[in-house]
Amino acid sequence: MTDPPAFELNCPLPFEQPERVLLAHGGGGRLMQNLLQDTLFPAFANPFLAAAHDGARLVLGNQVLAFSCDSYVVHPLFFAGGDIGSMAVFGTVNDLAMCGAKPLYLSVGLILEEGLEMAVLQRVVASMAEAAKRCGVLLVTGDTKVVEKGKGDGLFIHTAGIGLIETALEIGPQQVKVGDAILINGEIGAHGMAVMAEREGLAFEGPIKSDCAPLHELVSELLTAGFELHCLRDPTRGGVASVLNEIAAQAELQIELKAAQIPIDPAVASACEILGFDPLYVANEGKMLIFLPQAQAEAALACLRSHPLGRNAAQIGVVQTGAPRVILHNPYGTTRLLDLLSGEQLPRIC
Amino acid sequence: MTDPPAFELNCPLPFEQPERVLLAHGGGGRLMQNLLQDTLFPAFANPFLAAAHDGARLVLGNQVLAFSCDSYVVHPLFFAGGDIGSMAVFGTVNDLAMCGAKPLYLSVGLILEEGLEMAVLQRVVASMAEAAKRCGVLLVTGDTKVVEKGKGDGLFIHTAGIGLIETALEIGPQQVKVGDAILINGEIGAHGMAVMAEREGLAFEGPIKSDCAPLHELVSELLTAGFELHCLRDPTRGGVASVLNEIAAQAELQIELKAAQIPIDPAVASACEILGFDPLYVANEGKMLIFLPQAQAEAALACLRSHPLGRNAAQIGVVQTGAPRVILHNPYGTTRLLDLLSGEQLPRIC
Repeated sequence: MTDPPAFELNCPLPFEQPERVLLAHGGGGRLMQNLLQDTLFPAFANPFLAAAHDGARLVLGNQVLAFSCDSYVVHPLFFAGGDIGSMAVFGTVNDLAMCGAKPLYLSVGLILEEGLEMAVLQRVVASMAEAAKRCGVLLVTGDTKVVEKGKGDGLFIHTAGIGLIETALEIGPQQVKVGDAILINGEIGAHGMAVMAEREGLAFEGPIKSDCAPLHELVSELLTAGFELHCLRDPTRGGVASVLNEIAAQAELQIELKAAQIPIDPAVASACEILGFDPLYVANEGKMLIFLPQAQAEAALACLRSHPLGRNAAQIGVVQTGAPRVILHNPYGTTRLLDLLSGEQLPRIC
Repeated sequence: MTDPPAFELNCPLPFEQPERVLLAHGGGGRLMQNLLQDTLFPAFANPFLAAAHDGARLVLGNQVLAFSCDSYVVHPLFFAGGDIGSMAVFGTVNDLAMCGAKPLYLSVGLILEEGLEMAVLQRVVASMAEAAKRCGVLLVTGDTKVVEKGKGDGLFIHTAGIGLIETALEIGPQQVKVGDAILINGEIGAHGMAVMAEREGLAFEGPIKSDCAPLHELVSELLTAGFELHCLRDPTRGGVASVLNEIAAQAELQIELKAAQIPIDPAVASACEILGFDPLYVANEGKMLIFLPQAQAEAALACLRSHPLGRNAAQIGVVQTGAPRVILHNPYGTTRLLDLLSGEQLPRIC
């Protein structure tokens, strides 16, 4: 297979912005990148946004803080392995952790649809509280709005978070270097397929549970052990392939992955095969990609594997000089360009 | 008129929580208070939430920060004097200012409905950018989600904000004291009636414009002048009456208002009268209530009046010992209890 020419990724993207918002604009793929690059970033231009990381790094007095936020619109609200409440806590905790921060405080905004069962709200709130306790974060401020029936979808949650950055490392895509190893802390694609199964009422051979989990402890252990972390990123919407495309573009380097080294649960792999999904583009909610010097990869993998959330950690690729793109090496010696999708295989996955 | 017995406000509220979420749960009235007290505060119990202010006060290293958030679901998106974009910036800036903080950084979450015109999004984003510039805040991190047509309503915005508290005063409802004067920086009810007019296609005698505006400069001037501010609060959802009820309950003190001293634009007053709204319960987006010692009231009013956003500032009431309730003294010597409404006169006003 011939690789497409590199200008496709270097030049302004050739898509024209459609006149109306499409579902695909929320998918973490190319349309979303266009929306950010054409509309949002130019309007709000500042160096914090230009860093294009999972959160902003703010220096306030003698402290360095991380500040991040996410809205959660996952449908359905409950699925095997998690729910919108735990996701809304873990998701923002993870974004802070990806900045190398210790998560401390969260804000919570609820947008409720008229008619939502109070019992559902209580279940979600209880799940948020339990998740916050697990992460040692406090939900310190919040807001509740209600919209008319038919103007929402049960329940949307927005969380913003503040974390404390104690490492001197500046973790982010700009720090990625040629020769870096790319690690992941376990199997890909479970969250997306668990939500898909719940949404469509599908039963697969093995049970598939979302990997929804907080990653701050893993990050803390890597930092405490002194690894020179260049970049951390949780491959949520758009999966591993989309997130690596973003990082390749920001670092202006080529990423090469070995398909055979990418951990995947057989049940998730077969569900993806049956339904025609590429697991490299399926969302994760408890995984992170770690960029660090190749010389430290083995020790970092040992560190990850000593934690329950990193037992199946693996090195999946390396960073090379070359056009900013992501190349997948298949077992039979062929290669495939992992491009940004125009949208998302599974809307409203998070 | 006989005042209702005080136990109604002191005891657990007699309403039973309905089985489903009602529009009124979002209204800033009694149902919303019940939802917060019964469901949200117990689940997330911590001293920051217990302070029940517009934002949390966080000590981090040698800094004291304010952290606040709000979702914006106002309908329609554009109205005389503002739009959802400027509201989403000014609203969170104001919540930070009410903590006595200098607003610094905002996060932005957009929940877009499939089919939203891109031109509308661009107009809202431009308005946010302009509002942020006016306030000297940076939008440093964000998130965009898209939901299917019919599962949202064009555009919802969530902003969270971080501000720096440099005053040694701990501003909040717990600091309100017997003998405090209650000031307001101008006329009430304009925002609610402007949105109402836009929503229903009404034209009133005079043009009614929302008062949507950032209050951080006014707060900064009061702090710089050295006034002993006990509490600041912007009377948004539920208006002046609802917000004063909350403060009376938190401070465990009685609030007395003089109707004749409450500034109101004649066009707003007559629109309220025609439509049967009580302007004391109508939302404001550029007003604040200021609690400070009576001896400082005149000087503080002079300070407020020297700023364009405080030209019509007035003292509207005082804090007294007594049951935690809000009493309105009418010009003819009668009094009226301003209770919490069960819901909100105007849903989706902010």
